[in-house]
This record gives sequence, structure tokens and C-alpha cells, in this order.
Amino acid sequence: MKKVKVGMVGYKFMGKAHSQAYRDIPMFFPDAVKPVMKTICGRDRDGVSQAADQFGWEAHVTDWRELLADPEIELVDINAPSNAHKEIALAAAKAGKHIFCEKPLALTLEDSREMLKAVEEAGVKHMVGFNYRFAPAVQLAKKLVSEGRLGRIHHFRAWFLQDWIVDPDFPLVWRLQKEIAGSGSHGDLGAHLIDLAHFLVGEMEEVIGMSETFVKERPTADSMTGLSAKGSKDAPKAPVTVDDATLFLARFADGALGSFEATRFAPGHRCTNAFEINGSKGSVKFDFERMNELEVYFTDDAEDVQGFRRVLATDPAHAYSEAWWPPGHTIGYGQTFTHELLEFMRALGEDRQPVPNFRDGVQCQAVLAAVERSIDERRWVKLTEM
Amino acid sequence: MKKVKVGMVGYKFMGKAHSQAYRDIPMFFPDAVKPVMKTICGRDRDGVSQAADQFGWEAHVTDWRELLADPEIELVDINAPSNAHKEIALAAAKAGKHIFCEKPLALTLEDSREMLKAVEEAGVKHMVGFNYRFAPAVQLAKKLVSEGRLGRIHHFRAWFLQDWIVDPDFPLVWRLQKEIAGSGSHGDLGAHLIDLAHFLVGEMEEVIGMSETFVKERPTADSMTGLSAKGSKDAPKAPVTVDDATLFLARFADGALGSFEATRFAPGHRCTNAFEINGSKGSVKFDFERMNELEVYFTDDAEDVQGFRRVLATDPAHAYSEAWWPPGHTIGYGQTFTHELLEFMRALGEDRQPVPNFRDGVQCQAVLAAVERSIDERRWVKLTEM
Amino acid sequence: MKKVKVGMVGYKFMGKAHSQAYRDIPMFFPDAVKPVMKTICGRDRDGVSQAADQFGWEAHVTDWRELLADPEIELVDINAPSNAHKEIALAAAKAGKHIFCEKPLALTLEDSREMLKAVEEAGVKHMVGFNYRFAPAVQLAKKLVSEGRLGRIHHFRAWFLQDWIVDPDFPLVWRLQKEIAGSGSHGDLGAHLIDLAHFLVGEMEEVIGMSETFVKERPTADSMTGLSAKGSKDAPKAPVTVDDATLFLARFADGALGSFEATRFAPGHRCTNAFEINGSKGSVKFDFERMNELEVYFTDDAEDVQGFRRVLATDPAHAYSEAWWPPGHTIGYGQTFTHELLEFMRALGEDRQPVPNFRDGVQCQAVLAAVERSIDERRWVKLTEM
Amino acid sequence: MKKVKVGMVGYKFMGKAHSQAYRDIPMFFPDAVKPVMKTICGRDRDGVSQAADQFGWEAHVTDWRELLADPEIELVDINAPSNAHKEIALAAAKAGKHIFCEKPLALTLEDSREMLKAVEEAGVKHMVGFNYRFAPAVQLAKKLVSEGRLGRIHHFRAWFLQDWIVDPDFPLVWRLQKEIAGSGSHGDLGAHLIDLAHFLVGEMEEVIGMSETFVKERPTADSMTGLSAKGSKDAPKAPVTVDDATLFLARFADGALGSFEATRFAPGHRCTNAFEINGSKGSVKFDFERMNELEVYFTDDAEDVQGFRRVLATDPAHAYSEAWWPPGHTIGYGQTFTHELLEFMRALGEDRQPVPNFRDGVQCQAVLAAVERSIDERRWVKLTEM
Repeated sequence: MKKVKVGMVGYKFMGKAHSQAYRDIPMFFPDAVKPVMKTICGRDRDGVSQAADQFGWEAHVTDWRELLADPEIELVDINAPSNAHKEIALAAAKAGKHIFCEKPLALTLEDSREMLKAVEEAGVKHMVGFNYRFAPAVQLAKKLVSEGRLGRIHHFRAWFLQDWIVDPDFPLVWRLQKEIAGSGSHGDLGAHLIDLAHFLVGEMEEVIGMSETFVKERPTADSMTGLSAKGSKDAPKAPVTVDDATLFLARFADGALGSFEATRFAPGHRCTNAFEINGSKGSVKFDFERMNELEVYFTDDAEDVQGFRRVLATDPAHAYSEAWWPPGHTIGYGQTFTHELLEFMRALGEDRQPVPNFRDGVQCQAVLAAVERSIDERRWVKLTEM
Repeated sequence: MKKVKVGMVGYKFMGKAHSQAYRDIPMFFPDAVKPVMKTICGRDRDGVSQAADQFGWEAHVTDWRELLADPEIELVDINAPSNAHKEIALAAAKAGKHIFCEKPLALTLEDSREMLKAVEEAGVKHMVGFNYRFAPAVQLAKKLVSEGRLGRIHHFRAWFLQDWIVDPDFPLVWRLQKEIAGSGSHGDLGAHLIDLAHFLVGEMEEVIGMSETFVKERPTADSMTGLSAKGSKDAPKAPVTVDDATLFLARFADGALGSFEATRFAPGHRCTNAFEINGSKGSVKFDFERMNELEVYFTDDAEDVQGFRRVLATDPAHAYSEAWWPPGHTIGYGQTFTHELLEFMRALGEDRQPVPNFRDGVQCQAVLAAVERSIDERRWVKLTEM
Repeated sequence: MKKVKVGMVGYKFMGKAHSQAYRDIPMFFPDAVKPVMKTICGRDRDGVSQAADQFGWEAHVTDWRELLADPEIELVDINAPSNAHKEIALAAAKAGKHIFCEKPLALTLEDSREMLKAVEEAGVKHMVGFNYRFAPAVQLAKKLVSEGRLGRIHHFRAWFLQDWIVDPDFPLVWRLQKEIAGSGSHGDLGAHLIDLAHFLVGEMEEVIGMSETFVKERPTADSMTGLSAKGSKDAPKAPVTVDDATLFLARFADGALGSFEATRFAPGHRCTNAFEINGSKGSVKFDFERMNELEVYFTDDAEDVQGFRRVLATDPAHAYSEAWWPPGHTIGYGQTFTHELLEFMRALGEDRQPVPNFRDGVQCQAVLAAVERSIDERRWVKLTEM
Repeated sequence: MKKVKVGMVGYKFMGKAHSQAYRDIPMFFPDAVKPVMKTICGRDRDGVSQAADQFGWEAHVTDWRELLADPEIELVDINAPSNAHKEIALAAAKAGKHIFCEKPLALTLEDSREMLKAVEEAGVKHMVGFNYRFAPAVQLAKKLVSEGRLGRIHHFRAWFLQDWIVDPDFPLVWRLQKEIAGSGSHGDLGAHLIDLAHFLVGEMEEVIGMSETFVKERPTADSMTGLSAKGSKDAPKAPVTVDDATLFLARFADGALGSFEATRFAPGHRCTNAFEINGSKGSVKFDFERMNELEVYFTDDAEDVQGFRRVLATDPAHAYSEAWWPPGHTIGYGQTFTHELLEFMRALGEDRQPVPNFRDGVQCQAVLAAVERSIDERRWVKLTEM
């Protein structure tokens, strides 16, 4: 397999990010299976037409069923709003397409399991969009853990802090509506932290959480792109139906302790997706706002020069880096998607499941759901209950 | 009142810190009531004799009862191991002495309440040793909160990370024995975080925690000073009876969310006593390893220059700073005690209770106990239960 | 003008960077004139053929004269090694093509002036590749200076530190040979600092410098890409004919003082292209290894919260940012070229000269030459001498 | 020798700093020779009387001749304004006293040489007050250099940035008057950088500098303490006769390159006394505003975890640290003087000259003078000329 024809559903924030990735893979990773940008789908004809032209897709459609009906399309990329994931994915599996689905996989754990069952029965390749795994600095953290260089892991603490809705007049966009987004900071931001915990530490045994909606109602919005929105602060108000912040504690299966915090109410933090791992032999720290860096500490450094090293993960020794620029020349958020979709291309080339796939998506959804139950029932919830 | 004669029980780590503070107060804060370093008490005659000479105390005794019996002594400073606090404090109160007591006030909430009752009935001045309040950068955080410059507080997250017992061969010092220390990271480190939370945000409503002892038994120790110890790794082992790490979530009375983590198993963190506060108008961040700095963010900064400011709290506008050095010339850990005991001197001069006092000590103890109960009973515990 | 057909000479490090930029402009800046990637030129037929395919060029040639002879090509992008710039640029001007030329414009000041004369006589648009101007954080620095928010500028200090040739066995690549590269750290790294100084502060009046070649000879190299090379350390050695490090002091025309340092012998610095500006009302600091950040200080901040702000230049208020991702989602080195070539596209659309153009290139070359003369003659050299 | 009786001339900023040091030495370094604080001298009777009481001196006088006439006094500490150093030191040497003299040793190179000659002829111990050497992090830098762990030194860059006179209405204090202070930023701040260069790298061969006085005249001042002053901005103006900023380049005797910058016009920098050393095997970075930290990089770290380590120099492996607090508990500016004067006490105990002594003071003065000559004569000046 040298090429794969892609059809993509969604053309906003994630659609743009994925498009750039598809375009850059052949340029920076020429040995990988080459994605052919065939068809893009969106409900608004003008919008999707412009996106097709701008992003470089050969064709565009307004109904995803049409896209699935095209026998040439081998891979379907779903980055429509969360509440549409399930229906499209089930249909795509049925049509025998490989599937990339943005996170969260679905609005509920049950739905995500149904999706996993569908892709496994269909025998297609499937992947879920946890792009932060693909920052070279995060890959380095994974390598250090896997090679035992941090020893036994005792702690994982993670926080995803944003501040785009601190203003109570910020409008009620779809990300603040439960029926479309499923949840707020928890599913949007916390989901990434949970996936990183799974990737770097392993499975959780039990969780307990708390959450809050600080601003209970907001002016309705006119439109939204990325994390910004247009609207009048004098527009009629409607209730916010998701969490502004969710925190939880976890115990991992291997005994490590975990602390998680997701909030959209942390002024000064535009996108602080950060974690720290403490092991018996060392520690690592990561902050996405400085995504090219990993801070690394080893207990066996000479006793007079012990300290966290600021490693710029742009050396040849670091994942993906040789494909880009010389050491010290950084990459950005956009490139995490290039690496993510490269993993899908490599998996296709090697005829294996990409990682993270729907199993990882379900595992994440299980933790999200367990935390929600722990909040509702005010008690520790074991993952085996879910 | 121009002078106060002090008797101090304890002469190790804290004894040294307090002695420097008493000596420096008249030099750097000449307008305050002057502490006269009269008598120091310790069980080991040679040790306390040497300490008296070295630290500058006029006399030394080996029995604290002797010290309390001295009618000249007006203020008793208790920094003996935690399990001795109560008995000495009760006797000191009975003797009508003003009392400074190191944290934690006592090993149990009940004991600390008994101590509070005693000092209130005796009508003496009392203070508890939460020294981190007295870093100028922490005082600045308090000022910003109090003046409303951070708006309504939504979040408080705090972590106290150390790494001095990560090595499983580190010996079983008294800080790892429940009968002497009361608890491990929770009472030693967590107590400081709880006090900062009370100082900066206010009372908590309910908590839930988790804890772990990663290394279950250790070689017995020969001796301990500060956080280091002497001993052979081949010494016979005995059980560690306190927690290595304790985490908890909290809901504050005013609706803010709290996240707390205390651990002695975080390699690379010698003394990371850190917190962040997120309010509706801004945020602040503090890390004791850079104790002269406070990071400050305001939402109403001009839109093209929004960012956390690194404020070096050494300007005349900052608490205590004019007494020390010109702007940019930092102070250290030792000076937090100078400020702390200065507060006691000022309170004596103004005939008021110093802050924090035994009430604050009890309030902290109540949270410590509530968290412990929440761990034992695996449920949220309200502070009103305690 | 809606589209412009581009021919590019060079296909290695810079060729790749420019190609990505040409591809991304229509996607992220759809309103700009669209570059059409017509022909790429390189001496090695296989290499350039593969590059054409990989980077997305319609055609490829091995002789740049052939490319110039193509009447369809309107814009020539020259990123061949420095010693080839002049000949190609003169011919391109003669052919009436618009020209983008990588820095340094030429190996000597005289050559660069000849090139400027040629493009001005030909009446074509011309631009020189000082890409660091186009980091949004650098644009912010410029904005603050231009708007007078830093006051009168007193100081500019800048240093470009790399470490790729600290190992004395690193081979003698073309960047270490005077006849090809012109100079070493001075022309490669110092040139960027000089251009930033011109951009941010203004013209210099006089300079004095010093330089050193720490490793006098090196094993000859087999091949080079980016800043890495292949070769055997047992290969025969040959002299290094350029500087490893060059420092100079400068006085600006408006009275500000300048300090400049360029070195390839600073271990731990992969690509620290950094500057600081001190004005009467504030300061800014930039480090390319954290290229999304600008540190900003204002003297008129409230007296208790004065400190450098860490501004993440990813907000809508910052140049280019809205075209990319939401606030807090960073860009990388590659995107500086997108912005740089976007400037050329915009200039074409507005029928004006892009900035920086060959005038800026000559101005930079004059300072480079003045510094070299100051080193040779061990004296202050005025720019008016050049 | 177990004790030494000290007489001190000066009781302002430095007098206070030295007093604290004398008081703390017996407490924190009980094995050293003990300084006995006998007599303090100052011209203002009320001021010096209060200082004696506040700082803990046994007696006070208003004429330093009286102090020198006291046969009990063995060590004279001179921290009066710079223009008084020479006369007092010469008399003290004649009286056979050991001498500690604040930097700069004198207003001119000639004077400093006369002082050195005097102490050597008198056979007394002598020391000069370059306190920054005594930060544990700077001692660590020295250790790494001395042990060859940074390899051959290629570069030293240093900058001492302050901002206390950026406001043109800040009054004309004595530090801005040549007849009292000798020079401005050059002798005050640059002298420290030069001494650090001597300490860490070695002797210089030649220098060239530039300087500027940005604000030519200022309102006359009423009084000054530390770096602050009282005065009216409407007071009559008088000329500033020292430099606001001085920069210079240097070549070290062993071939390393040096870059130095001292300024009082860098907004946001209260006291940024910073340097970086680049060697063939590694680099270190220091900034006094974070004086407990040294950043350290080694070229031979494993290739995937190379990066500057942030070493907190508070471990037992670091100079002086065990005398203070446990690891992670920092010290401040004041403690640099404790270490500095401890060196004098140790030298007395071991009957050797302390380091840095008047030789180092003269060496520093020679560089200061060479830079001044290079500015006057606009040429490189060799140290052998001086």
C-alpha cells in the first residue's frame, strides 16, 4: 500500500489541522503511505466548498453518506462535532472504511463501546485523535518510562488549564452545551490528560472527582470558530449545561497515585496542558505551552549537579525531529497532527492497528464516565464497575 | 512593653531557625518589641549547652519544667518534636506564659482543641508556626486577594513536593514514625498547604483524600538533623507508619475548588512548596524554591501584552522588604522566621493576638483530621463533622 | 494579481522551508496572492527530482539559467549556497523576475550593492530572507517600540548561540569555508542579529568587534544537510577559514548602545537567537528557542506588581495568529517562513516593495563588513566609511 | 587564634550587611575564628550610636583614627564611601591591623596599588569585598571549571543590569558623582563582573569598551540609603559625572572571549548580576536574582536527555550549605557576606591570606582603568600597559 484515499467529515478547527497534516506527511515523511485528499464534507455548501479549495481537497460534499458511498475512499476522518461521531463511525465501519475519529469518541461510554465493536467486527483500522501523545517531548517521556529510566512510577499529576470563558459575557457556544459536547472541561480537556495517563503510566483502578459550573448561564452565541465566538453580550441568556472545571483523584492499577485537573477558568493559561511524573529513579515535567521542551531529572546524577534538565526535544535522538529542522528549531501545535496522522499512515503500511485506537478511546471514555459517576454518587468508583 | 524574655524548648533545625530570627529582629526591625534570648531547653545536656553558646542564649536547662518555673520568662517557644507540644503548651499556659508553638500544634485534633482552650482560658498570647505565610511574595498574594484584584476566587491548587526519602535505604527517622510525628507528608507538608489555603482563600466545607506509603519498611536510624539522617542500610528494618504521599480535593465554603498534594517521593523537588490561585480577574503562582518571586496575571491588561508577570517581591512596595536590602537583593528561608516572630513581637507591642494563632492551628488540624477520616472511610467528609 | 508563478533555486534546508511556506500560504492566508510552485532547480538531477516530487513542485531543472529562461516564471527564490546568490540574482533581475534571496545577500558588501543596483534598475520586487522578523513575538516587540511603549531606546543586546561544531571532530562542511560561506558565525548568525537590530532599533553609527576560530582545522566532510554532516573523524584535515565566534559593540545613530555576540561554541544552546531591548519606559526580551513568547516589562505598572510579563504571542491581538490556531496553541520555526513569504505575496498584491528587501540586505552587509574591518584594523569603524 | 576583635568604619548599607555576617558566623560556622564586634565608626554621632545599638557593636566612635588607635582592635573593616578607602587603609596597615575593604578598593589604579604595597609591607591580612563569589551557586561554577568539567573555556559573557535611575527625576546621589564614587555602573557593577571573570576564567589580555550617560543632569539629592534616595524633583539640577552604562569586550590570556555589560538603565532588572561560561565540555549560567540556582550543561550527557540542568545549590554537596538549612531551603543576599567574612575568619585561623585580597582588588582596578582608557582613546588597551 503506497497511497490511501481520504474522505474527511468536518472542516473547521480540526478539519484545518488535519488537512495541513495530510499535506505535510508526503513532504516531511516521504517514506510513509501517502494520504490522498479526496473529499471533504460539511453541511454548509459555501463553507465546505471554500474549505476544499483552501485546504486542497479534490472534491466536497454536504452529506457524509455521499462520502461513505464513494468506493474510492478508503479512510474516513471524522472531526465533526462530538454528537455526530457515533452515527458516522458506525456507517463508515459498515462500509468497510478505515476510520480516524477525533476525541472524544462519543458522548457516552456505551456509544463508544458500540463504535469499538463495530470497527472490530468490520476488521478496519481505527484511530482516535489524542494528538498530544505526538509531541516529541511527550514521546521522550514515554521512552524514558518504557526504558525504566524513571524507575517505578509513584505519581502522575496533570492539569489542563485554559481561560477562554472566564468572562461571564462570553457566549454560550456549542462546547458549553451538553447535548452537543457531552461534557465541558472534563471531556474536552480532561480527556487528553486521561489519555496521557494511560499512555505514560497505565490503567486506573478507581477514581473520585468533583466539578463546578461557575457561570450558570450565558448569552447565546451567533457563531464559533476554534475557541472564539461571535455574539452580543446583550443576547438572551441560556443555561450552561456542562462543567467549567472538573478535578479528580485516581489510583492506578500498579499503585501509582494520580491527580487531574481540567478547567476553563484559569486566567493566564491559554493552553497549559501539563503533567509531571515522579518515579523511583527520576521525574519528568511537560507543559504544552512550551511543547518542544521536557524537563527531566535523574536521581543518579552526580550529587553536585542534580537538577531538572530542560531538554529541547528537537535533536536527532528525538522522535520525528530529523524530518523537520536542525536541532533547536522548534515545531508547533500543528505538527502534532502531522505525527498523529503519520502513525495512521505507518499502521496502514505495516498492516497493524494504529495507536491510540478505539480501544484507547473507550478506555478514556470509561474513566470520564467513572469520574462523572463518582461526582453524581459522591463516592470512589472502580473502573471495573463501568 | 519594650522587651520580652524568651525561653525556648528545642534546639535542632527549628531551634536554630528561631534563634536567628530572635537575633535579627532588633537589628532589622528595631521598632518592634525586642526578644531577649534568655533560656534554651533540650534533653541532651552537652547538645543544649553547645546550642546555647552557639545561638546566643543566656542560659540552658534540660527540663522544660525548669524553664516554665522561671518567673522572668514571659514567652515560651515550643519547637520540640510534635508529640511533646501539648504537654508543654498546657503547662506553659497554666504558668501564664505567652506561647509560640511550631506546627503541627498537636498529634490530634482533640489535643489541639485542648491547647486552644488552655491558652484562651489563660488569657495569654499564642501563635503557631506557619512560617510560609511570611514570605513577602506570599504576603503579596494575600494583598492581591484581599484587595479584590484577583476577583472572585475559583480555584486553589497547591503541592508540596520533596524527595528526601525516595531512596528505600533512607533510614526510619522520627518523621516516619506515627507515634512521634503524628503523620507523614500529610501533617508535615500538607499542613502548610492547608494553612496557606486558609490564609489566602478561606474555610473549607468538605474534603476527600487518598494516601500511600510506597516504602513499607526501612532500616532503623542512628540520628537525624533537619531532613538528613545517619544510619546503616544494613541496620534491621522496621515498619514506616506514616504516609509517603497524601492528596486531597476540597470544596471551599465560598464555592472555590481546591486540589492539594503532599509527597516526599518527587525526585528533583527538594522543597517545592507551591500554589496557584485562579480568580475571576487574575491569577497568582508561587513556588518556595523561588520564594522571592510571585507570578501575577491580570485579565484587564492590554490585550497584546497579557501574560504572567514575574514579580520579585523585594521592592519597597512589598512587605518587610525595606528592612532588608535594596530591590532585587533577595532573602532566604531563614528570614521567613524573622518575619514570623516579628509578628509575635508586634502583637505583644499592640496587645493583640498574633496571626496565625492557635485558632488557625486548630483549623488546620481539623482539615488534616477530616482528610484522614475521608481516607479511612473512603468518602467525602464535611468539616462540620469534625 | 491573484497568483504568482515561482521558480526556486536550491532544495536543501532552506528549499524545504520555503516549499512548506508556499504550500501553506493559500491554506492559512487565502486572501493573499497565491504562489504557484512551478519549477525547482538543483545541480543533482536525482536529488532535485525527488525534491520536486516530495515538496510539490510541478517541474524541476538542473540549470538555473533554464529556470530564468522560462517566461512563465515571475518570481525567483534563491536559496542556493551563499556564493551563488549574486550571479543568479543579477541574471534574474535582468530577466525581469521578482526576487527572493536568502541571507546573506552576498559574500561582500560590494556584491550586495551591485545586486541592489540591479534590482532597482530592473524595477522588480525584491526581498531578503531575514525570517526571524516574522515570529509573532518579534512583531510584537516591533509594535511596542514603534508605538513608543518602551520609550526612548537605550540598549540593545543580542546573542545568537549554537553548539553544533563544539566537537573538534565535526567535519569541515561548507559553512566553515570562507570561499563558499563568506564568513562563519558572523555572517550566518550575526547577520540575523544585525537585521533584528535594524528592524527594532535603527541604524548603527559605529562598531568594533573581535572574533576567534577555536578549532583551526577539521576533518573534511562527505556531505551536509541542515546543520548536520556525515564524515569520518579520521578523514584528512583542512583549515577552518571562518570565525567560530564574533562579538561586537555598536553605537546606534540615535544614541543607543548595542552588544552583539554570535558563536557556534556555546554548549547547550541549539539555537538561542535572543535579544533584549531596554528603553526609558520598558524592556522586552526574546529567545527563539521559546519563539512564541515575548517577555515585556513596563515601568508604569502598579508599584507592587512590576515584573516581566511572559506574553504568549498567540492571541488575536498578535500578528498572524488568527490565521493559525486558538490562543495558546503555538507555531514553530517553519511558520516564520510562511509569514516571510506571505509578506512578499502581500507586497505583490499591493504593488509595493516587500520588507526586508535588498536595501535591508545591503545595510546588514555593511555592518558585517564594518565589523570585519574593525577586527582587521583593531579600531572603531564608522558605517559612513563603508 | 580563636577570636578577632573587629572595628568597622561605615554603618549604612554595607555596614548593616557586614554586621549581620559577623553575628551569624559564630552561630552557623562555630568552628571558625569568632569575630568580636568591638567598635563601629561613623561621622554622624546619633546615626552611629543607633547603629551600634541596633547591630550589636560594643562601642562607637566618630573618628576612624580613634578606632585605629585602639590596640585591642585587630581587624579593620572599611565600608565607608569609596573615596575614603585609601586613607583609612593606609593608616590601618601602618597600625598593623588586618584589613577588610569594600570594593572598589580605591578610586584609581594607582591608589589601589599603593594600598596593596602598604598591606604587603605591613604584613597584615587583607581582603576585598567581592561578595558575589560567595554565593554557593558561584562556588559550584568555580568547582566545575577548576575540576575541568567544563573543558577549555571559550567564552565568558556577563551583564549586571539594574534600573534604579531610569527615571530622569531620580536625584543626584553620591553614587552618581565621580569625585566620591570614582565611576558609575562601571566601577559599581562592572567591577563585580570583572572579579567574577578573574575568579572563574582568569586574567585578561586586552579590552575595549564604550560608555554613556543617558541622563546628563539630575536634581540634587537630600539623602541616600542603599539604592534609594530622598529628594525633590524640583530641586536645582547638577551634572551627572559618571557613566550610566559601560560595555566592553575582552580577550583572556588563555584565549577565551569575554563580553561585559553594566547598566543602571535596564527596566525590569532590579539586580540581574548574571554570567554564562561556555567551555568545550559544558556551560554554566548564573543570575543573582535567582542566586541559589546554577544552570549546568554537559556535552557528554546521554544524547536524548541533553539540556541545561537547574541545580539548586542547597545540597550537602554545595559550599556552605550544610551550615544552613536542609536541601531546597534557600539563602539570600545577606548570606553572601556571611560566607565572605567567614573566608577572612578561616584565613586568620589558618594563617594565610584570604581570597579575594588586595591583589585581586588591584587586578580588578587595572581592568576598570584599562577599559576607561580604551574608551578615552577609542582603542584596544592591553593590560600590560597599565
